[in-house]
Amino acid sequence: MKFGVVIFPSKKLQDLANSYRKRYDPHYALIPPHLTIKNAFTATEEEATYLATQLREIANNYSPLQLKTSKYSSFHPVNNVIYMKVESTSDLESLQSEVNEKLDHEKSEYAFVPHITIGQNLSNDEHSDVYGSLRMSQFQHEEVVDRFHLLYQLENGSWTVYETFRLGKE
Amino acid sequence: MKFGVVIFPSKKLQDLANSYRKRYDPHYALIPPHLTIKNAFTATEEEATYLATQLREIANNYSPLQLKTSKYSSFHPVNNVIYMKVESTSDLESLQSEVNEKLDHEKSEYAFVPHITIGQNLSNDEHSDVYGSLRMSQFQHEEVVDRFHLLYQLENGSWTVYETFRLGKE
Repeated sequence: MKFGVVIFPSKKLQDLANSYRKRYDPHYALIPPHLTIKNAFTATEEEATYLATQLREIANNYSPLQLKTSKYSSFHPVNNVIYMKVESTSDLESLQSEVNEKLDHEKSEYAFVPHITIGQNLSNDEHSDVYGSLRMSQFQHEEVVDRFHLLYQLENGSWTVYETFRLGKE
Repeated sequence: MKFGVVIFPSKKLQDLANSYRKRYDPHYALIPPHLTIKNAFTATEEEATYLATQLREIANNYSPLQLKTSKYSSFHPVNNVIYMKVESTSDLESLQSEVNEKLDHEKSEYAFVPHITIGQNLSNDEHSDVYGSLRMSQFQHEEVVDRFHLLYQLENGSWTVYETFRLGKE
């Protein structure tokens, strides 16, 4: 089955993201708004216990993280994905890289661009409409993230949380 | 905001429940299949930390629980809700009652009927069709549940996991 590791931001930021996802993200009903730490990967249900142990150890070594976002961005032309750009910090990068290396011993082929998706699978026209109206908007949002989650995917494509890991608390 | 406490059963049981929920449960896209330990209640985002501390203490005192289900049942005529009936055990009952008392110091007005909803808000006709075909089916499912979750509700009605509590492990 598929597993993934994500951060759920505060309710406030999730509600804001959902106000766009509702219209522009086909994954809207499958998972709450999130910042992906590790993309979907395959493991057995039995391996979940081991994955959780690994993640618990990693979480012990981190303090709660700052999550700052102030603008929308896009992966166009690679992908028509619009997202809230999350400011990279050395802690966030190091958490992401440690989780990826520990869980499957292979480095991702993509650079880590911390983000919260608000639209995807958009046609070129839709992308340029939506991004055109969002790209100039500025906002200030800052919060402290003190946990992340291991999730698994059900047959219908939706995600269930397996376990929460609190940063530096256990 | 609204919080709730639930158990997510194994992927296998969630997939089975979703095969019915997809057609018969309007909450299908809002939350994965679950066994409710504490119904939605109101608390502030700041109180979540305290709620989690309480739940962590409770979880420490329980061993993993048996979850057995072998038939479908219904709350009709009170509610047109069809569910997988989960066999009650003294541990499950005591966990449910402790969670409810600790989190809001008031007893629920309903008796606890452990269940996993697979259909709700059905018309009388739909209820009798669906339940008519399910009520005679027997199956055997047994698993061990070693965790439960505190969730909160977003503005769109969907639920995000705040924290996982492992039974007897911390």
